[in-house]
Amino acid sequence: MLVVMQSHATPDEVAQVLEAIKHMNLTPHPMPGATRTAIGITGNVGAVDPRTLEVLPGVMELIRVTKPYKLASREMHEEDTYIEIRNPKSEIRKVQTIIGPKTFTLIAGPCSVENEAMISRTAEFLSERGVRLMRAGAFKPRSSPYAFQGLGLGGLEILSKVRRRTGIGIVTELMDTDNADAVEEVADIIQIGTRNMQNFSLLRRVAKSGKPVLLKRGMSATLEEWLMAAEYVMAGGNYNVVLCERGVRTFSDHSRNTLDLSVIPPVKHLSHLPILVDPSHGTGKRDYVAPMALASLAAGADGLLIEVHPEPNQALSDGAQSLDFAGFDRLLESLKRLAEALGRAIN
Amino acid sequence: MLVVMQSHATPDEVAQVLEAIKHMNLTPHPMPGATRTAIGITGNVGAVDPRTLEVLPGVMELIRVTKPYKLASREMHEEDTYIEIRNPKSEIRKVQTIIGPKTFTLIAGPCSVENEAMISRTAEFLSERGVRLMRAGAFKPRSSPYAFQGLGLGGLEILSKVRRRTGIGIVTELMDTDNADAVEEVADIIQIGTRNMQNFSLLRRVAKSGKPVLLKRGMSATLEEWLMAAEYVMAGGNYNVVLCERGVRTFSDHSRNTLDLSVIPPVKHLSHLPILVDPSHGTGKRDYVAPMALASLAAGADGLLIEVHPEPNQALSDGAQSLDFAGFDRLLESLKRLAEALGRAIN
Amino acid sequence: MLVVMQSHATPDEVAQVLEAIKHMNLTPHPMPGATRTAIGITGNVGAVDPRTLEVLPGVMELIRVTKPYKLASREMHEEDTYIEIRNPKSEIRKVQTIIGPKTFTLIAGPCSVENEAMISRTAEFLSERGVRLMRAGAFKPRSSPYAFQGLGLGGLEILSKVRRRTGIGIVTELMDTDNADAVEEVADIIQIGTRNMQNFSLLRRVAKSGKPVLLKRGMSATLEEWLMAAEYVMAGGNYNVVLCERGVRTFSDHSRNTLDLSVIPPVKHLSHLPILVDPSHGTGKRDYVAPMALASLAAGADGLLIEVHPEPNQALSDGAQSLDFAGFDRLLESLKRLAEALGRAIN
Amino acid sequence: MLVVMQSHATPDEVAQVLEAIKHMNLTPHPMPGATRTAIGITGNVGAVDPRTLEVLPGVMELIRVTKPYKLASREMHEEDTYIEIRNPKSEIRKVQTIIGPKTFTLIAGPCSVENEAMISRTAEFLSERGVRLMRAGAFKPRSSPYAFQGLGLGGLEILSKVRRRTGIGIVTELMDTDNADAVEEVADIIQIGTRNMQNFSLLRRVAKSGKPVLLKRGMSATLEEWLMAAEYVMAGGNYNVVLCERGVRTFSDHSRNTLDLSVIPPVKHLSHLPILVDPSHGTGKRDYVAPMALASLAAGADGLLIEVHPEPNQALSDGAQSLDFAGFDRLLESLKRLAEALGRAIN
Repeated sequence: MLVVMQSHATPDEVAQVLEAIKHMNLTPHPMPGATRTAIGITGNVGAVDPRTLEVLPGVMELIRVTKPYKLASREMHEEDTYIEIRNPKSEIRKVQTIIGPKTFTLIAGPCSVENEAMISRTAEFLSERGVRLMRAGAFKPRSSPYAFQGLGLGGLEILSKVRRRTGIGIVTELMDTDNADAVEEVADIIQIGTRNMQNFSLLRRVAKSGKPVLLKRGMSATLEEWLMAAEYVMAGGNYNVVLCERGVRTFSDHSRNTLDLSVIPPVKHLSHLPILVDPSHGTGKRDYVAPMALASLAAGADGLLIEVHPEPNQALSDGAQSLDFAGFDRLLESLKRLAEALGRAIN
Repeated sequence: MLVVMQSHATPDEVAQVLEAIKHMNLTPHPMPGATRTAIGITGNVGAVDPRTLEVLPGVMELIRVTKPYKLASREMHEEDTYIEIRNPKSEIRKVQTIIGPKTFTLIAGPCSVENEAMISRTAEFLSERGVRLMRAGAFKPRSSPYAFQGLGLGGLEILSKVRRRTGIGIVTELMDTDNADAVEEVADIIQIGTRNMQNFSLLRRVAKSGKPVLLKRGMSATLEEWLMAAEYVMAGGNYNVVLCERGVRTFSDHSRNTLDLSVIPPVKHLSHLPILVDPSHGTGKRDYVAPMALASLAAGADGLLIEVHPEPNQALSDGAQSLDFAGFDRLLESLKRLAEALGRAIN
Repeated sequence: MLVVMQSHATPDEVAQVLEAIKHMNLTPHPMPGATRTAIGITGNVGAVDPRTLEVLPGVMELIRVTKPYKLASREMHEEDTYIEIRNPKSEIRKVQTIIGPKTFTLIAGPCSVENEAMISRTAEFLSERGVRLMRAGAFKPRSSPYAFQGLGLGGLEILSKVRRRTGIGIVTELMDTDNADAVEEVADIIQIGTRNMQNFSLLRRVAKSGKPVLLKRGMSATLEEWLMAAEYVMAGGNYNVVLCERGVRTFSDHSRNTLDLSVIPPVKHLSHLPILVDPSHGTGKRDYVAPMALASLAAGADGLLIEVHPEPNQALSDGAQSLDFAGFDRLLESLKRLAEALGRAIN
Repeated sequence: MLVVMQSHATPDEVAQVLEAIKHMNLTPHPMPGATRTAIGITGNVGAVDPRTLEVLPGVMELIRVTKPYKLASREMHEEDTYIEIRNPKSEIRKVQTIIGPKTFTLIAGPCSVENEAMISRTAEFLSERGVRLMRAGAFKPRSSPYAFQGLGLGGLEILSKVRRRTGIGIVTELMDTDNADAVEEVADIIQIGTRNMQNFSLLRRVAKSGKPVLLKRGMSATLEEWLMAAEYVMAGGNYNVVLCERGVRTFSDHSRNTLDLSVIPPVKHLSHLPILVDPSHGTGKRDYVAPMALASLAAGADGLLIEVHPEPNQALSDGAQSLDFAGFDRLLESLKRLAEALGRAIN
């Protein structure tokens, strides 16, 4: 923490700030300069609301120096985190797939569970292609109360059945604490959606879960806020957090959201957690999914969330951004070629 | 809804789109032009995901025409909505204050409930000034898991006691459905925070409440998304929604958020709901609160949410943006003068 | 300037940074803390590109402490700047109006010069109302090459004639150095448009002019960048800079731009320059101009730029955001009432 | 163009809008619906300012349907544009390199011309690696008037000498019309910087040039505004426009700008012009350049602008985002491997 005094701050004002810092049980380091004094602060700064110093007379501004996240930071935990997903069918819970830097994990499937037939068909299609995790929502956050809200518990039942039968791992969204137990039972990875990234009650609930959490970036979350949301889950005892970039909100209107691939290198620099990209929500348009999927791999992401639907034009939600099976096969081909050139393995 | 064909779309492609529209039980209105054909669509368009048409061959883009909100829209309900808040102490529940265009309602108080003494002191101070609604959080959404999270149920108890004793109305935040009953019992207005504007489970829960809902704008919510969130509450049967602008997220870094006062006239144009402004969170700095409060009144808002604290520099949260009592008195003076010039009455 | 080392930076890495700082002729102030070392830097920091230090091994981040603007800053020049506009007709160049905190200056007129009759009519109308400055563009920056680009030099001639005849002061935009002499001759205030806020060649040119400069904020300019643009003009010797907020670009789509009234208090805090607001461009809609004009006055702006047109629905550009004369009269009434309540005088 | 009437618009109001449309020499197509009437408009809509209709009584909103750009649009010109750069040394002006979809063109070099030695060294290094275009600025747009502004005409002379000697093509920025002739003589591609994307006087000037134009995207330009800026150059007769994405301004603060790679597929969809990416300015940090460069190639860009400097830590500007020669070599290796997997050739 650094307090910058105004250039015409009086010695008394400086002294008052030094006092206030000591009063917080912190150590001030005054640093007189040609035009102004700055005061470094050391000690357990995290416990203090810095803005209180900012309003003292003679203070120009207050600059935070240390990052507020600990468990999510690479400084505290240098090695990359790998998330192990275990096989739903195997008695001894064999590791089915691992999310992390050495591989490139595909999670694919429809936006929402519509009926058992389409979930079965998709699970079988994906399994044949070697994809071991399927995404599909039973609870759907929709901006309109009049839009299809998902099948709810009935949707979870379908997922559970197909999961047991095919052995595919399930990634599905949890929207509220009321349904946490039900979702936890079916999901191999619990998804927290973009609108709930700062739903702290929900974060505290999944922190108590034994299941990995896929934490989508909030629509206007800074990287720090995103890592702080991960910190909520980790501080509660669940270290299995996978980040997922899905586009942020900007003035730019050529796509549904602005997919921020440039967040990948800083995430890797500041944190040890794996990061996936969701180009389907990021772009909102089927034709733009494949180029952004390839770019995600090239930029260093650890995998993708991709919407795939047996018949996208009949989908109850998000059909316009879903690939059909043939489209997914074409994308898979390109991803494999690219992954090979980059020395990575599709997972 | 309007489908715009590409300039070189073939007659076959146009015919296929007409078919698809009829197949959705809607009526197409083809409109051939010099360079391209556009196709108007009438019927119950709300039930359809328009983007499905967008991916048909020959289609350039799809333009939505009608607004997706109904109950919140002024088109459906021309007259302004007034929200009546009843006296907590009065047996017959007399109307204590009314939020709406004719008055200008002040809601003031500390960021969070810290202890009974400070809540009592603030309630008494406000009551003396004629302010009839006090804000104070028992549950605090904080971006860090290590920051003060509010006193929780203990905080609600304090609010309840002070409310019964002083008769001041309480505005307090609900963060999750688990605490809905407890908050509902104490609150005269239930606040939904900016991070929960699209927490649809929470919106559905307060829709069932008999208490008015203060719906803060999401940090990056468009006006349409905000009105759709209000629509969730109204569609569930609770028509007592008060909107509250509290700053949006932009590139601009001179204040904590960018307070979007220019949303007030469009809200008044498109909706019948009242709108308040929270300049404390909007600016994040005590010194900037008063000018923005005055500007909110001049711009046509129906009231304010203001952070006031007996000793801001000792506050456990948000002290830097809280006014002390003297500062609030100065602001109140200015607001009264301005309100008089505008033919409004402070409430 | 402050260099923050990583928590596991070695003593050697710290020593290397200290060396690098000394090598730049600056003084390092090492500040060891519990988890990491920070290094304060004093000396003439402005001359250095700080990011060079940031890439040294062991460095986590580099934090700039002092503001890069000097002449525009209130720290260097505590008193408010008042800009005097002299009477175009008076031989001895009497002061006609003063822009600054004590008054509230109106600058009104059409988007563009369309013909002499409409300019004359507007100038006479405004003069009758006591408005002493008229805005009107001869050169128009239009996003389409096919849209009306203004009358150019012919437009300037019209403005010059009407100015001499009526004595109204002229505010008109300069788009390039080629037309600087011509604009300078006619303009009492030279306007730099939002798209040219960082056209540094143009800023350097008007820095040499004796005429005051109205510097519109760039569409996505931070406050610091805006004040740095003012610094360009002032560093070149022209201290008569008037800032003008006109809306910034955000995700928000309910108005043409997001009028950032919350920039007014920080401008007043950080700089001594006067600031006007342009609610016509800020909102883009006639009906929203009056509430935002009143809010600007209440927020502490020093005046307004308002589009007024004798027949807005026939205007060649920006008709939808122009007031007609009756609308301007109504606004003027409200502004006067409000100004009186605030102890300000309309100018 | 589509006019949407309010749901309670009267038949008279509809009639009045039909009249107004005919008065503009356009054809109205009324489309009565269940709740409201919409009116399609055909004819030469581009000539009209649509917002004039929007303020008529009974009108709810006005929706533009056709794109305002023509020459830059793929609808008007289906085939991809290839830009040929000719050899500076060859008498008969042999084609040296071609920018367009089949290849992937690298343009590399220092931020600014600092002296002849470093320009020579860089040109030789690049030529050895097969890079045929070098970027280097003689005129530098800097946000501070006190920062290094480039060597100006002296810098151009250095570029000219090295160009003639080594045969490398030169990409250099033009900041104002005053220096247009001088820049035109040296440059093989004239760069228009992000701050000048809507400097329409400058665009009109380079429209008259025989040299290709590299048009950087404005910091907060929508895709449409960017293509309209290209349209300015093309409408003036210069069809050789290369677009360049370099990051946009958003709330996101983990990198200098938000590199918007998701703009690449829509550019390819809507326009026939080639598009490059500048990951150096986009990220602002050396370590993030390589992943974003690879992602640009994977996303379908036609090439890169990369900052390379013999000694980045001594650079007079932008050293922190420049690669050194070894870093460039490593990047080149990766690009080649990736390009091969994608069936493209580095150029």
